[in-house]
Amino acid sequence: MGRWEPNARGRLQQAALDLYIERGYGQTTVAEIARRAGLTERTFFRHFADKREVLFAGSDELRELFASTVAAAPATAAPIDAVAAALDAAADSFRERRDHARRRQGVLAANAELQERELTKLAGLSAAVADALRRRGLPEPAASLTAEAGIAVFKVAFERWTAAAETRDLSDLVHESLDELKSMTKCAD
Amino acid sequence: MGRWEPNARGRLQQAALDLYIERGYGQTTVAEIARRAGLTERTFFRHFADKREVLFAGSDELRELFASTVAAAPATAAPIDAVAAALDAAADSFRERRDHARRRQGVLAANAELQERELTKLAGLSAAVADALRRRGLPEPAASLTAEAGIAVFKVAFERWTAAAETRDLSDLVHESLDELKSMTKCAD
Repeated sequence: MGRWEPNARGRLQQAALDLYIERGYGQTTVAEIARRAGLTERTFFRHFADKREVLFAGSDELRELFASTVAAAPATAAPIDAVAAALDAAADSFRERRDHARRRQGVLAANAELQERELTKLAGLSAAVADALRRRGLPEPAASLTAEAGIAVFKVAFERWTAAAETRDLSDLVHESLDELKSMTKCAD
Repeated sequence: MGRWEPNARGRLQQAALDLYIERGYGQTTVAEIARRAGLTERTFFRHFADKREVLFAGSDELRELFASTVAAAPATAAPIDAVAAALDAAADSFRERRDHARRRQGVLAANAELQERELTKLAGLSAAVADALRRRGLPEPAASLTAEAGIAVFKVAFERWTAAAETRDLSDLVHESLDELKSMTKCAD
């Protein structure tokens, strides 16, 4: 199994992101990522299925965080407030990772295949939130619509948070976007 | 250029969908689609880039319909109402295609790659609507959030419309979903 490498996972992620930015995602190989991290390819494949999945590590944990936070909201909480609690928890989980997130967004912006994968990740978050809402007794289509709206808020806030000139916290941007969505849907009819 | 074939495009779409359902998407070749339609491969490639794009024909027109309907809404219309008008126009454009849409959804449900492509199509619709809203003077993040909410309504309503037991019109389901979204986001705080 090879010797234990301190923080191999983090070093591989850092090396991958550096190379994707320097050379382009398409031009980078797993061998190069491992070499840059001072590790072997075998160690790489113990942590990631392929070079794409380096950029999507943590997706399962994020989905679980969304689902469990919605599930843990008080039974009396309105569905949108249960989703808002999940958005807060997710924002908090990214608190120390703004620089990483900005670099990652830059890599995604240059590659259509990675953007498709990101959309699939977001759809998975939405499906998990909808499922958690149904378990709270919310029927369809309300569950799916509330989940989709919540993930849209997260997506828009996250894109703003990673923009170059933006200095506000992700959680502030999430709250602002959620309020904005409420006001946009409320002022009609 | 070969002779003119009456409704070659429609015949190819029909043949492709038949084969995708009978044999599976992955097991079907362009040659088989052309043969089933009584046409040549060369004719196929005059209409579609590859076998995947048969399922996404009309995406550009749908995006254009969303964008132009948002643009054509009265200047005094609230953004969500401009989006609602686009949802109505889109629903109307699918009026005669429920059976086709149901069969297509069945093919997509069995193939992760096609689902990713569908998410990309929906993201393109959302981006076009957000752009049309910005041209109406709506700032960010309101434009993107309203667009995302509108496309979420369309997605959820479309999935219900293509469900086996559903008999209501797409436009009724769109209205119901939009009202549901408004009520879910309004009743908080």
